[in-house]
Amino acid sequence: MSVGGDVNKAKLNAARKAVEFITDAEVIGVGTGSTVEMFIKILSELGSDFRDKVFTASSIDTVLKLSDIGLKVLHPASIERIDVYVDSADEVDRDLNMIKGGGAALTLEKILTYYSSKRIFIVDHTKLVSHLGEKHPVPIDVQPYALRMVYSYLLRQGYNPKIRYSVKGKYGPVISDIGGVIIDVYPPKDFDPQELERELASLPGVIETGLFIGLADYVIVGYEDRVNVLKREVRSM
Amino acid sequence: MSVGGDVNKAKLNAARKAVEFITDAEVIGVGTGSTVEMFIKILSELGSDFRDKVFTASSIDTVLKLSDIGLKVLHPASIERIDVYVDSADEVDRDLNMIKGGGAALTLEKILTYYSSKRIFIVDHTKLVSHLGEKHPVPIDVQPYALRMVYSYLLRQGYNPKIRYSVKGKYGPVISDIGGVIIDVYPPKDFDPQELERELASLPGVIETGLFIGLADYVIVGYEDRVNVLKREVRSM
Repeated sequence: MSVGGDVNKAKLNAARKAVEFITDAEVIGVGTGSTVEMFIKILSELGSDFRDKVFTASSIDTVLKLSDIGLKVLHPASIERIDVYVDSADEVDRDLNMIKGGGAALTLEKILTYYSSKRIFIVDHTKLVSHLGEKHPVPIDVQPYALRMVYSYLLRQGYNPKIRYSVKGKYGPVISDIGGVIIDVYPPKDFDPQELERELASLPGVIETGLFIGLADYVIVGYEDRVNVLKREVRSM
Repeated sequence: MSVGGDVNKAKLNAARKAVEFITDAEVIGVGTGSTVEMFIKILSELGSDFRDKVFTASSIDTVLKLSDIGLKVLHPASIERIDVYVDSADEVDRDLNMIKGGGAALTLEKILTYYSSKRIFIVDHTKLVSHLGEKHPVPIDVQPYALRMVYSYLLRQGYNPKIRYSVKGKYGPVISDIGGVIIDVYPPKDFDPQELERELASLPGVIETGLFIGLADYVIVGYEDRVNVLKREVRSM
């Protein structure tokens, strides 16, 4: 098993590699989380190379971090397309489908991912799984108005929903940057990710799900001493 | 110094006393937090006495807790007035001015407080201070759009602002139920609460402050073995 330090080194290696993917981009989208934080730190160290680029972010946290190091952060509503999006993930399967949302930023992350020309996800090797859901629930961002209704539906479906609670600084449920409540869904083992995504995304009250199906172009997997770049194969149907 | 158990007993005594204040009320507003949670537990134990009353809540958490025990929770936008509001506080001074917002629910709490005919606050004795700010910062609920602008203003004023960060379940700042970011403000010692309230509340971008000036009608102070009911004296100007 890896110890914390090794995982951090693995994350750092992946984050460093991601810089190669953004050199030609003008508009860069940046995700949220501890691995992304390393990526931002690397950007700040590289300094002036990125002063002529513009950025947009999937969270208030990343907006603050990018502007802290002097980068221009565009308002998302001013942007038509993003050249490259860089984010991390909580789980990645063999088809490069992913679970995201451990940091509660899934809705804005999915929007930026979808509208980006090239989508890069940086993870350490512990995030690779053979089936989604092995280590993490599937988070969904829920309109508070519908909280009890959505929760009851999920319960009836046998998805074992758990409202995500805040542990400090706020009493009650965690609220996402867009004002949603996060429900962590625990579907039965060997669920079909595509099927579940279809079902959850179509539920009124569910703003977005943490299932990212067919949305990664590259996954950069960091190990302690190397990286492995996985490219999604686009199959003709 | 009190140990945890004593404080819990003190909270429970205060919460129990508050029930006397709601017996004649039809519409009851309920705040948020651990002391309020005890109050709700007492309501559930008293059971059928409260089935003919209706409730409204200052947070998603309290909506869930009240409806969990079968009580009717009205949509706040359907209510013109509240007969009695019951909530807790983080600090109470000799004039019964208060700091609230440790649980990040200050904005909705202030709305319900303001529009209630009778306002009851239940606290344990450790919440009494001789000057507000002794043990807690003053939280403000900030529209995220204005986050850096408000933060910079506060910094220039010497108010030592700190953005409140989430420790688990969400990456980045804590978000309130109404979508605000909480900034904890540390004004200089012996600040004038009324002055500070005026200044902060008038700042564009500040949705609401955790300073509750002249808004408590009764403060029920719980001790391990008794309660003390404080009534605010209304002075003619």
